Amino acid sequence: MKTELTGRSLVADVVLQDGGDAFHGVNPASGENLEPAYVGIDPASVEAIAEQAQAAFVEYRSKSGAEKAAFLRAIADNIEAVVDDLVERMPAETGLPEPRVRGESARTMGQLRLFASLVEEGEWVDARIETAIPDRQPLPKPDVRSMLQPLGPVVVFCASNFPLAFSVAGGDTAAALASGCPVIVKAHHAHPGTAEIVGQAIVAAVKSCGMPAGVFSLVYGSGRTVGTALVQQPLIRAVGFTGSRAGGTSLMKVASQRPVPIPVYAEMSSINPVIILPGKLAASGEDIAKGLAGSVTLGVGQFCTNPGLVLLPSGEAADAFAKALCEALAGAEGCLLNSGIKSAYQNALAARAEIQGDGVEVLHANPGDGADAGCKVGSALYKLSADAYLSNPVWAEEAFGPSTTLVTYESEDDLIHIVHGLEGQLTGTIHGTDGDIEAAAEAISVLEQRVGRIIYGGFPTGVEVCHSMVHGGPYPSTSDGRSTSVGTMAIQRFTRAFCYQSAPESSLPAELQDTNPQGIQRLVNGASTADPIS
Amino acid sequence: MKTELTGRSLVADVVLQDGGDAFHGVNPASGENLEPAYVGIDPASVEAIAEQAQAAFVEYRSKSGAEKAAFLRAIADNIEAVVDDLVERMPAETGLPEPRVRGESARTMGQLRLFASLVEEGEWVDARIETAIPDRQPLPKPDVRSMLQPLGPVVVFCASNFPLAFSVAGGDTAAALASGCPVIVKAHHAHPGTAEIVGQAIVAAVKSCGMPAGVFSLVYGSGRTVGTALVQQPLIRAVGFTGSRAGGTSLMKVASQRPVPIPVYAEMSSINPVIILPGKLAASGEDIAKGLAGSVTLGVGQFCTNPGLVLLPSGEAADAFAKALCEALAGAEGCLLNSGIKSAYQNALAARAEIQGDGVEVLHANPGDGADAGCKVGSALYKLSADAYLSNPVWAEEAFGPSTTLVTYESEDDLIHIVHGLEGQLTGTIHGTDGDIEAAAEAISVLEQRVGRIIYGGFPTGVEVCHSMVHGGPYPSTSDGRSTSVGTMAIQRFTRAFCYQSAPESSLPAELQDTNPQGIQRLVNGASTADPIS
Repeated sequence: MKTELTGRSLVADVVLQDGGDAFHGVNPASGENLEPAYVGIDPASVEAIAEQAQAAFVEYRSKSGAEKAAFLRAIADNIEAVVDDLVERMPAETGLPEPRVRGESARTMGQLRLFASLVEEGEWVDARIETAIPDRQPLPKPDVRSMLQPLGPVVVFCASNFPLAFSVAGGDTAAALASGCPVIVKAHHAHPGTAEIVGQAIVAAVKSCGMPAGVFSLVYGSGRTVGTALVQQPLIRAVGFTGSRAGGTSLMKVASQRPVPIPVYAEMSSINPVIILPGKLAASGEDIAKGLAGSVTLGVGQFCTNPGLVLLPSGEAADAFAKALCEALAGAEGCLLNSGIKSAYQNALAARAEIQGDGVEVLHANPGDGADAGCKVGSALYKLSADAYLSNPVWAEEAFGPSTTLVTYESEDDLIHIVHGLEGQLTGTIHGTDGDIEAAAEAISVLEQRVGRIIYGGFPTGVEVCHSMVHGGPYPSTSDGRSTSVGTMAIQRFTRAFCYQSAPESSLPAELQDTNPQGIQRLVNGASTADPIS
Repeated sequence: MKTELTGRSLVADVVLQDGGDAFHGVNPASGENLEPAYVGIDPASVEAIAEQAQAAFVEYRSKSGAEKAAFLRAIADNIEAVVDDLVERMPAETGLPEPRVRGESARTMGQLRLFASLVEEGEWVDARIETAIPDRQPLPKPDVRSMLQPLGPVVVFCASNFPLAFSVAGGDTAAALASGCPVIVKAHHAHPGTAEIVGQAIVAAVKSCGMPAGVFSLVYGSGRTVGTALVQQPLIRAVGFTGSRAGGTSLMKVASQRPVPIPVYAEMSSINPVIILPGKLAASGEDIAKGLAGSVTLGVGQFCTNPGLVLLPSGEAADAFAKALCEALAGAEGCLLNSGIKSAYQNALAARAEIQGDGVEVLHANPGDGADAGCKVGSALYKLSADAYLSNPVWAEEAFGPSTTLVTYESEDDLIHIVHGLEGQLTGTIHGTDGDIEAAAEAISVLEQRVGRIIYGGFPTGVEVCHSMVHGGPYPSTSDGRSTSVGTMAIQRFTRAFCYQSAPESSLPAELQDTNPQGIQRLVNGASTADPIS
């Protein structure tokens, strides 16, 4: 392995106090500890780390788009250089196989490079200019210019289920660094070595690009103590989080109770309903069942977009669909990320097993071996009548893992009623013929109000990283359904609109100067143009 | 008066339960009650009002830009037709003079018409399209399209200090209706008649434009009971508020404790620091003093952007400036909006009067007559050393009314230290020569991080309504310093990004269809274009 793992937080120029017991990464397949031990910081060290991030912000916020792009690309290049290290360490820590490590590395580098292009091009700042009209009646019109500017130091919590793409150098970090915000990453206890490999890649980029040292820190420690201290720290301006609903809502509470509240972008839980309409079910039920099985078991079901609820009209076609899906899922098994996720999956399946009664069928459920030191589990598949589904709220709760629930409805009204009762979701999926879609217009309209992304004819897993992606949804799927954690729109999370009135050219950022040195498209006196102001 | 005042909430098709005692508008100049009495609703009526708004949302959210524009213009036209009614009623309720009523009416109509143009033109939705690449390796690229969509029913609280431009048909209402959100307005108890005149103008527009009845409601009632019930109501998706810090933070708390938290856009308090740098002070101190006096007393000091703190280098020029400002302010007096604001102003001046010691000079302070039934007060002007200012936090608190405080600093470090200690503000103003501005670069950089708008060489009052205005600032000047309550960017408050994946053309809104029927500029595969997709 090229990277030498130190077992320590990566914080430049701050003498850290150790806090709590050291911990190890654990191989979920075998239960064995992985070296080295990782030492968490004492929450008392958080203030100095945040002060260093704030000091970096003063310098970093005025870096040009080209400078930030070079930095983001250097991070991507440095990660590329240690992919073999990741292939060595990450499967041991997470049970995820090599192809996933290579795929998620590629996505992570792709995200960094996409944000690099975005800030190099520069139009993301939404530059708006209204020029002065000194002789306007009854009052002169002043010169007013606005653009998005970075908020300040941001805390990003690593996700258990995406050790790369939603962790140290993941989407939130890339978006925050692109916007001009320093980032303090809180590592996840389940993949500390993976975090350090990526963290060292970023630190090397900070140095080679001449960025201020505090622009990036990686800290280890308990979420309850160090994580809370980070969110409470007055210099922190926003928080990014991907994880459980309990974790996310707890951070929201801490952030809202600060003397100065700050935004928390938490991605929490979602059961991602899939609706299969009658015409399509009859025509292509078997194909959909196969595709669905792949989506349910992808990453051993540990995706935020895992389809945990399938709604379809009752009848023979539904029965055939259930049979086909059951066959496709029956043999599925895999190793969950860690023992905490395994316990949660087993508890979720146990809660379902307790529900008896008319219209409840357990097609199969394999929660794995409780006594086994490893985290291997199988899939679970339930089939319910609409009444059975509606009579117990457990069915609408996320069972994080390779589990899904089929619910058969009797009428369009049933369907609307079920969709109406859903909590906010990241995604909703429709399988339908043109005629199906027309007939289900009301149900689809209700579904749109419950989700951030609607998918026709596909599956929710596999989130495309692009300009138009919205990976966010109404609460409680995320804390703030106005924004996205995937794609270039995520940069807006870490910004605010800022306005200059009658400022001299020399006090304006390049994006707002008359000469438009970057040649970006701007809204000038109401019209979009890349021309300079003469 | 053309408008017949009913003294009742304006809610279509809901039988309201009356709640609490009826109340009257009160003439602040004389203390006399104005007819008719206004009857508040019982909080139990809120659910039915919200349900009607939600029912309207289902229809209203899919109205075209042209239809929403016609509606907004009809509201403006109907207000224009009752300006004489406003001129009759509003001064009696608020003490504001006729020219202000005419000016604020014009601004209110201008805002509505600006949002009409914005939604008619249609590009505000930020349409983004990535087309499919079915043969991409290793995975096919799906078709992904996103745009901003309305959140749902919104509650808007009327502001005491802007009975038109930040009230029933004010900026938040215009932005929310433009985005596609129904609005429930909570009237302010201090100008119920003004609210009803405008409310009736909107109701008439709802009817003439064939809009669903629940798209607009105006309710009277206590903020503590009815206001809280509105913010707690599960169907409400966002809140707009302009008022006191106590009121705003209380609504933030209610909203964050809901089972489903919602965004609150509260504009609260700001002392809008003005920095006069040495070169400019020497060259133009007297002119700045005159301009500042006008800004401090505008609207009897009851503007969110009132300049309540002036920082300038100590010395003879500062003394001359203080003398000139004192002379310009000395005779100023006016009628405050209501007895509550008068009490708060008197309390603020009393708290300042208690502070004795080195470096504290009361140049003049005229809190008005406590026994007087009317609300007439005079201005207040204080001059402090930097040490005196820093030794008591009262000086940095807003004294809502025609009051300002001069603070003389000894060094650039002093200035930076004072600016560093400021809470979040709506605005910051710099008066400086080119040389001054260069020399004060660090102080200005710190100021930028404390404010939403920086003004060079002018005064903060008089907020231009345009595409580039940011009337918002870091907490506690607003609850959410990422957004603005003035200008077209305010439409973003009431929206969320929403995404369609692989949707058939017939399931897409016009803005995202291949043919681009509206001919709007869109981001297609990363490039901005108004061309259709072929």
